[in-house]
Amino acid sequence: MRIYISEVSPRDGFQNEKVFIESEQKIAFINQLSQCGYHKIEVTSFTSPKAIPALKDAEYVMHNIHRHPDVIYSALVPNLRGAERALSCQVDEINLVMSCSEAHNQSNLRMSREQSQEQLKAIIQAVNQQCQINLSLSTAFGCPMQGDVPFLDVINLAKYFADLGVTKITLCDTTGMAYPSQVKALFQEIQTAITGIEWTAHFHNTRGLALANTLAALESNITHFDASLGGIGGCPYAPGASGNTSTEDLVHMLELMHLETGIHLEKIMATSRQLPTLIGHPTDSQIIKAGPRLTLHPAPVQ
Amino acid sequence: MRIYISEVSPRDGFQNEKVFIESEQKIAFINQLSQCGYHKIEVTSFTSPKAIPALKDAEYVMHNIHRHPDVIYSALVPNLRGAERALSCQVDEINLVMSCSEAHNQSNLRMSREQSQEQLKAIIQAVNQQCQINLSLSTAFGCPMQGDVPFLDVINLAKYFADLGVTKITLCDTTGMAYPSQVKALFQEIQTAITGIEWTAHFHNTRGLALANTLAALESNITHFDASLGGIGGCPYAPGASGNTSTEDLVHMLELMHLETGIHLEKIMATSRQLPTLIGHPTDSQIIKAGPRLTLHPAPVQ
Repeated sequence: MRIYISEVSPRDGFQNEKVFIESEQKIAFINQLSQCGYHKIEVTSFTSPKAIPALKDAEYVMHNIHRHPDVIYSALVPNLRGAERALSCQVDEINLVMSCSEAHNQSNLRMSREQSQEQLKAIIQAVNQQCQINLSLSTAFGCPMQGDVPFLDVINLAKYFADLGVTKITLCDTTGMAYPSQVKALFQEIQTAITGIEWTAHFHNTRGLALANTLAALESNITHFDASLGGIGGCPYAPGASGNTSTEDLVHMLELMHLETGIHLEKIMATSRQLPTLIGHPTDSQIIKAGPRLTLHPAPVQ
Repeated sequence: MRIYISEVSPRDGFQNEKVFIESEQKIAFINQLSQCGYHKIEVTSFTSPKAIPALKDAEYVMHNIHRHPDVIYSALVPNLRGAERALSCQVDEINLVMSCSEAHNQSNLRMSREQSQEQLKAIIQAVNQQCQINLSLSTAFGCPMQGDVPFLDVINLAKYFADLGVTKITLCDTTGMAYPSQVKALFQEIQTAITGIEWTAHFHNTRGLALANTLAALESNITHFDASLGGIGGCPYAPGASGNTSTEDLVHMLELMHLETGIHLEKIMATSRQLPTLIGHPTDSQIIKAGPRLTLHPAPVQ
């Protein structure tokens, strides 16, 4: 079975770092990613430079990377102005975002879910098939302010956008609240309720469950996953907690299970090893620390 | 479904720490564990004090803990002398150990697998049902020196001991080489080949797969798991890598899935929070860092 991995470290990772990563460093990093076999790379976010200064160079980065013909280059877009900026850079895909919970949408986007729905609808109509569109639904597995999020809220939101013609939807475990039986059940229910969608799972390892949740999603026939090299990408609600699913740990597991990702593990590990220099701190990748499974060792001296 | 957890931090954890944990501290720690709802606690190891000075107080600790009537108090035993010492302390269970791979058995126990089999057979006969016996088979999912370990080697070893009357066998992923599809397949094959055994899974999180492998074992109807608070218990082959499955992370996942462990999560978290003081460094538990799933947070100030 083929699994499709989208690398989100240049956006979800870098935007959460305290240091500003220089544009040329970002470009070099993304150019390396383009040689690793990814299905998709989330390059940046066309958000207000004041809100997220870490990604204030969105246009420059988008214009100056070398694009590999087999890779989808995506960018996060929070509003109509962002969509125009993204289109001016010829992104392959715009990644729209809103939250499944009212509290998180208010906190993160400063508007009601209803307002977000209206705004994203306007973007979808304005884009008018000039590029692909993906919708990321945050807090689909739980909200750090509200707690549990009813499946029906997630399904109804997804249905609203499916009816507008959106065919790619990501369910995001924004702060690591998903657990395996829930993941399996939600993906089963939503696929039954809405057909014709390419579903992606976006997990965080906040509570150590990213790979277990991946297994659960695989059992519900999910084949598209977001991940971030080194597991970078923070969770502002749990200082010290892990971030996104680590791409190298994910690819390592999938390839052992004979699920083909198309990704070259050694190449992404080499790229991941550059992160501590770029971001100024070590990452959470277990594979970077321990090496792949068949890293053999001599017997210890006794 | 009921899941049975054995806490191995006092043995597998403490023996890998650089500091000597005072006997009274060990006793207080184990007494707390006894109040948390565990099925079993691996208290210590009756090994040579020269080989493992960290556990040189095995008799003293075993004699001075307060035993809860519902908990099985187990101790690791590597040889006949150790078995005699363990029996003199009225342990409930002796945990015998050998490796599935020749290279690891030679390195860890300084004898061939054949010699180990003979020696453990002599112990089983000497114990003669004075206490329960569990057999732990190391490197069942891979050997850090040899690489892959054939399923048949694991099954044949388990069969040898089953024929000697052993009814409890633990398959140990000693250095974190297990992966989900392998875990599922091995447990399915071994349960088909040998019946009448209470099987336990012992995973390490070296490569981030402890909870994913737990899911895979659950799918093969495994209900007994070893785990260690804070994930302590080292892997000498991968400096900086994670140790055992973290008990609090495991219980957190299982309870969310409505699998009853009988364990009080808040109590084990309180016990786990004492570990950094005892062992002199932070632990790898994600739940200690992030809190359980429904730990809610106010919206960040913007």
